[in-house]
Formats: sequence, structure tokens, C-alpha cells
Amino acid sequence: MSHRFRHFLALEPLTAEQITFLLDQSKPFQEIQRHPLKKLATLRGKTVALAFFENSTRTRISFGTAAARLGADTMNLQAEASSLKKGESLLDTVHTLSAMKPDCLVMRHSASGAAEFVARHLDIPVINAGDGTHEHPSQGLLDALTIRDRLGTIQNLNITILGDILHSRVARSNIHLLGKFGCRFTLCGPPMWVPRELESIGPQGTRIRRVARVEEALEGADVVHLLRVQQERLYEPPLSLDDYILLYQVTPARLKLAKPGALVLHPGPMNRGVELTVRMALLFLLIGGAGEDSEDSAAQKKDSSHASD
Amino acid sequence: MSHRFRHFLALEPLTAEQITFLLDQSKPFQEIQRHPLKKLATLRGKTVALAFFENSTRTRISFGTAAARLGADTMNLQAEASSLKKGESLLDTVHTLSAMKPDCLVMRHSASGAAEFVARHLDIPVINAGDGTHEHPSQGLLDALTIRDRLGTIQNLNITILGDILHSRVARSNIHLLGKFGCRFTLCGPPMWVPRELESIGPQGTRIRRVARVEEALEGADVVHLLRVQQERLYEPPLSLDDYILLYQVTPARLKLAKPGALVLHPGPMNRGVELTVRMALLFLLIGGAGEDSEDSAAQKKDSSHASD
Amino acid sequence: MSHRFRHFLALEPLTAEQITFLLDQSKPFQEIQRHPLKKLATLRGKTVALAFFENSTRTRISFGTAAARLGADTMNLQAEASSLKKGESLLDTVHTLSAMKPDCLVMRHSASGAAEFVARHLDIPVINAGDGTHEHPSQGLLDALTIRDRLGTIQNLNITILGDILHSRVARSNIHLLGKFGCRFTLCGPPMWVPRELESIGPQGTRIRRVARVEEALEGADVVHLLRVQQERLYEPPLSLDDYILLYQVTPARLKLAKPGALVLHPGPMNRGVELTVRMALLFLLIGGAGEDSEDSAAQKKDSSHASD
Repeated sequence: MSHRFRHFLALEPLTAEQITFLLDQSKPFQEIQRHPLKKLATLRGKTVALAFFENSTRTRISFGTAAARLGADTMNLQAEASSLKKGESLLDTVHTLSAMKPDCLVMRHSASGAAEFVARHLDIPVINAGDGTHEHPSQGLLDALTIRDRLGTIQNLNITILGDILHSRVARSNIHLLGKFGCRFTLCGPPMWVPRELESIGPQGTRIRRVARVEEALEGADVVHLLRVQQERLYEPPLSLDDYILLYQVTPARLKLAKPGALVLHPGPMNRGVELTVRMALLFLLIGGAGEDSEDSAAQKKDSSHASD
Repeated sequence: MSHRFRHFLALEPLTAEQITFLLDQSKPFQEIQRHPLKKLATLRGKTVALAFFENSTRTRISFGTAAARLGADTMNLQAEASSLKKGESLLDTVHTLSAMKPDCLVMRHSASGAAEFVARHLDIPVINAGDGTHEHPSQGLLDALTIRDRLGTIQNLNITILGDILHSRVARSNIHLLGKFGCRFTLCGPPMWVPRELESIGPQGTRIRRVARVEEALEGADVVHLLRVQQERLYEPPLSLDDYILLYQVTPARLKLAKPGALVLHPGPMNRGVELTVRMALLFLLIGGAGEDSEDSAAQKKDSSHASD
Repeated sequence: MSHRFRHFLALEPLTAEQITFLLDQSKPFQEIQRHPLKKLATLRGKTVALAFFENSTRTRISFGTAAARLGADTMNLQAEASSLKKGESLLDTVHTLSAMKPDCLVMRHSASGAAEFVARHLDIPVINAGDGTHEHPSQGLLDALTIRDRLGTIQNLNITILGDILHSRVARSNIHLLGKFGCRFTLCGPPMWVPRELESIGPQGTRIRRVARVEEALEGADVVHLLRVQQERLYEPPLSLDDYILLYQVTPARLKLAKPGALVLHPGPMNRGVELTVRMALLFLLIGGAGEDSEDSAAQKKDSSHASD
């Protein structure tokens, strides 16, 4: 079993040990967020390229800030500002960036598999910051870290996921990750968003059930994961927002059906610097510090070999 | 009387002593602009979040450069690039930024009171970089600093303000500030832009008069403050650009009516680094340097308590 | 003959010696791109303003990264984010930037001559990063450096340029530069893009011929320079993309007509860090390092006097 990572593209191929290792690596960075001076010199002289072909302020700012806190510089490519308009292909654009010799590429794209495709053609580490409806693996890690911090474990939990599960790469990443730790999943939402195929995702043997009523879904939940509802999708098959609220909203009364102390994860603003922490750990592991800084560094660098591709 | 600032939201609640203190604090930063190396280490390791929900290249670049000159990193959120499109509320967005633990938030928004609202919900200093038609307090400070540098004083001056005063947060900030120093104001412009209500703004007892003719407005002025005319507003009530120029333009002939040596402030490019200076002083006062850097620092840090909210 | 540069606006006015000097200056920066730590302290404390009034992701990121690698900070102004919308003139905008005391302005604009116009009004070095159909001089330098690296010389080569030569500032910059070294040019493409006037550009006595057939154009070529075809321009005079490919595409069969080992330059992603290298050299030469850093620096600073304006 190896803890060496060349890229960070998906949670699906990682083992439980690798994930535990990644979560553990985040802890020292969590400490640092509490200091008045939060900046390290670990990645001084390194450059992180951020290529966002799909808009995501939060993820972009969070990776950019994670890089800056580690002392790295960033290069910013945003799709709307990019040469893609002139008909340049994704690979051309990424090669152009790569010719400026960044030490790592953080990439978001609306096509599933885009990050993996790019990783096969570049000789620098690639971090998937969300690819279509496929995965958003760093988000999966930070949800897992939040759960572990709050409930003390990510083993054998009852996880209820509510909403538009079909289109959610975060739901998919969470099932891949938490499934490796024996968690059981209950999916609930409008039928068009919870198709039968979802029962067969996750690691071999993962217990996934779909239920129709939100009350049944919440019963005995350790974690309730609410997905963002994109209103423009609501109306595809006719379902009014009022109906959605009536049928699926997690009211305080309904929430009482979950276990006492159940943790609610929701798409709103997160807190306590977990987001930054996970992303600092990823950049640190994939790029590594300069030799002379490594003793100061908060965690220990691993050599670069691949686990996730 | 305290010189301690928690936020910097408006000039209205500040005393003349506090404003004098702020202007005095800018002087050492003005010196630094003349050095070949303009960068300080004062805020090294600190992060300034710039959240611009309304476009303003000049103010954004100036705060960003001020932060960089002090050694701080910046996080950039621009409205058109933001998640606001997905229906996230202002407060959600700001909480998301704040979870990444910046040391200060500089915010611009088209809604009057937005910065104050956000400041009540965050535990970091907030600087108002313009909120609707309410205030643009750092602009007010730099106009005052320019006047003091050029005329030697901001006491008891005759200030003439010309143009679209109704929609100008800068005009409002200037009246609040200069009114505290006994200045007298003459407002002039198309009647729809100079409503009677403007006579009652500013500190208690501020002398504000409205006059119809530009010649009368300019007579005896120490400072002539020209506001930008937004052409799309000109046509709301019918007034042609030609008419505007005929009636209100400050020609050299008309300007002779002002005092000899009168200072003209206009919305064009400013000079001499005053803009940067004021904004460096604000960031320095609100964030303060790391303990170990403080002896190098150009000014002295004050503890954080509130004067302006 | 002087190697001193005040601005870098165009290749046309430079001598062959000055160009050789610039290419030589790039070599040490090329070495640095191979180090694990690519960041220098040469321009620490300096600020490079990037004013892009026309979109160009590659050039903007490359100058921004070049500045960062030299330790400088950047200020970013992009047209679509700028105050230009409010009717501010180019000069106003540039004066506003300049008031924040950057040490250099890198500027791109859709109007030919814009950079030169701005340079006449600012007291800091200006680098032209592309002005209309006029020049894109740093691109010309990096094409020359690529040719010299690959073919060992830029003297007396046969250069074939294919495509939309009329609208290409890169073609123009390359003819100005390589013409000074005795290169001969063959231009080929749809007639509306290769007008007779192109025969008289370049240094006095430059041999430029236009040929109709791509096969004839390729015969004996040392360098084949393919220009990007902007499809929206193709249809101005009726020429289908299929026709264009049939008539002008450089197929492997056609390429055999060129000299063995001929170098093909194309508008796709470039490699080997040449782009960054040239731009680091330019910033270094125009801004120069701080006195105390100069011994560490990879090249030797020249004083600022003008060659190119």
C-alpha cells in the first residue's frame, strides 16, 4: 500500500488507508489557521496554476489562498478570460500554461473526465477541482474531515443525502469516500434526481437505498447531507418550489427523526478553515517543499508516484 | 476621544480629531512612495480580502496595490465572477470568504449600508470601499489629504461642489468630513441633482447652500469639486449634454471667479500617490503588523476597538 | 551603438546588435527555468502593471508569471473589468495606474500605436504586448530565440509565412526582426490577406516575395511560420474552410518541399519556457534590480535611456 500521489483526480480509486493518510495530513495545517501569522514558506518559489474553465468562486479562491498561505505564487486562468474563445482546444490551453512551468495544475471543467484527460498529457501533478458530474474529490475530503472532527469517526455511519443527487459530483465523491469506511447511504429526493442507477455506485458492497419520504430518509441518520437545489433544474419535470419544500425540506421537526447530535452538511458557507486546510495539505503533498524548507514544514513530503491515475 | 478603529465604514460618525489622526497616519506612507523600493514587510503573512460586488477598477487596484506594498497577500472576489449568480446571498458569500481567515475585508457594493451590514456579522475589520449612494469614505480621506497638502489646511474653506450631487457618495463623504472642520459648501447643478434635502446633510450646523448659477457658485471658492457626469443619467429629465456644458461647465473664464490658487478636484486620474497612501494607512491601522515587524513599521499600530460602527 | 532601453515598443527601430543583445540576455533566464526553484529576488519590491485592453490569456499570464518569477508584484487591469466603460480615456486610465507608482507598464491594446502613445506620456518603462495590427515585439523576440536555439542561427534564412499576414502583428514583428539579419521572406495565402504593400515592409533592402501556390512557398524554406486563421475573417471574401485547407494547408507531403530539418512555427502552445524567458529578460532590462540584489541577478542591469522610442 502506497501513500504516494502523483495526481489527485478522484476519490474512487483511493483506499481507506490513503484517505485516512490525507485526512491526517490536514491536521497540522488546521493548527496553522489559528495562528495570527498564517503564512508558511514551505512552497516558496513554487507556482500553482489555477485553470478554471467553469466558474467557481469559492473553490478558486480557496485553492488560491491555500497556495499563498504555503508561500507559492499562482497563475490564474479563467475560462471567460481565456483563449478558448479563439477555438483553442483544452489541451492546447493547458499545454500553454504548462510551458510556463508551474509546479502543479488545479483544474475545474464542466466535462466529466477532463482533469484525468489532462493529467495523462502533462508531466506535473494535476488536482481535480471538479469535473462535470463526475467528482469533486477535495470537497469530498473536506466533508469527511468535517464529519471526523465533529463526530469523531467516519466509520459505519448512516449518511442521508437529500436533493439533486443525479447532478451532484459532491454526492458522488462522498459516496466513494465514505463507502470505503463502511458507511450506509440513504438517498431521497424527487424521483428524477434519484434514479435506480445510483444504488450501484460506490465501493463494492456499499449499502445504498433509495427512499421516497423524507421522514423515512432522516430516521436514524448520523449525517444529513443537503445538496444545493438549482431552481432551473427543478422545472425540467414539473415540480414547484413550494412542492419541493413541502415534500423534502428538512424542518426542525423532521430533523428530530435523525440521531441526537446528527451533523447537517449543507451547501452554504462552511467554517473553521477546514476547506483551506484540506487544500493546503493536497498542494503540499503533490508539490512538496523545497529541500531546505522541509524541516520547517508542517508535514512530511512524499515522493511522487501515482495512486490515483 | 479614541483613535482606535475596528472598522472603517463611514466618515459621518468620526470626530475631527479622528480624521486628523487618519490623515497624519498617511504621511509616513507618502514618504515611502518616493523610495525606489516601495514594499514594506509590515503586513507580511496577512491576507486582505477584496470583495467588489460592483465594478471599480481604480479602487480595487489601489487597495490591492496598497496591500501588496505592505507585504500582505490578497484574495480577489469580483461580483461578475462570483457565486452570487447561483443565488447565494451577500452574507453567505462574505461568510465563505471569511472562513478562509483573511485579516481584513475591503468591500464595495451597490447597496447603501451593505458594508455596515456585513461588518455586524464578521469578526474581522471591514473597510467600506463604496456602498451605493451612501459613502466612499477612503475617497473622502484622500480628497481631504490632497486639499491639506495643497492648501495647507482643511479648516474653514469654501467648497463648491458641481454636478450630480444627488447620486454621489463621494460628495456625501466630503461634506461629512470637511463639515467637521468648519468648511462651507455651495452646491450647484441641474435642479434634479441638487434637491433641497442635501442642505441638511453633514455635521450639525454645517453651512450648505444651493445656488442655480455656476458663476455664483464659483465666487470665492477655495476648492472646486467637479463630479463625474454619467451621461445616461443626464437624459432622465431632458437636458442635453450641450445644455449641461453651456450652463455648468467650469471654463477658465468662470474659474477666475474662484479664489486665486483655488484647488480643482475632478474625477479624472489623480496623482502623487495620495490614493495609495491613504489606503495603506487604513490597512495598516486596521490590521496592524506582526509583533516582530512593528519596529520596522512606518506608523504605530493601534488596538482594535470601534469608532465607526 | 547603445544597448540601453527606456521602453520596449517595437522591433522596427532596433539594430541587429540590440536584438542580439536582447536574445543573449534571455539565456541566463532560460537556465533558471530548469531549476526546481525558479524564483529570483531580482525585482523584489518592484511592481509591474499589466494593462490588457484586449484579451490575451497567454501573453498576460506569461508576463505576470515572468514578473512573479523575478520577485515582482503585479497590478492587473483588464479592459472588460475597467473603468473604460464609464467613458474614461485610455490616457486617463493609464495615468490612474501610473499614479500608483508601478515600476513598469506592460500594455496590450487593439489600436496600432497605442503603446507608443502611452509611453510618450508616462515616466516609467512601457512594454508593448501587442498593439492592433502594428507589432507584438516580445513575440517576435521569442520566435527569433526559438529559431536560434533550434537552427543555430537567425542569419540569412529562408522564412516562409503562411496565412492571414495582413492582420498579423506577429508576422510584421518577425519580418522587422529577421530582416535585419538578412533573412528572405516568402509570403503565401489567400490574396486578400497578402496584399502587395507587404512587399515593402521590413528593413531597407529586405527581400520579400509573394507567391500564390503553397508548394512554391515551401520550397527550400528553413522556417515555416503558420499564422492562426480566424474563421470569422475567412468569410469576408467568400472562401470556405474546405477551400482554405485544400489550397494552403501544410500537409506532411507539402512540408517535404522545405529544407530537411526545417522548423515549423505555429500558433499553438509553445514549449520549453522560451516565452517566459524572453519576458523575464525584458522586465529585468527595463526595471532592473534593487542595488543590493544586483550581485545575485542573472544578468546585468543597463541604465535607462531610449533606443526604441
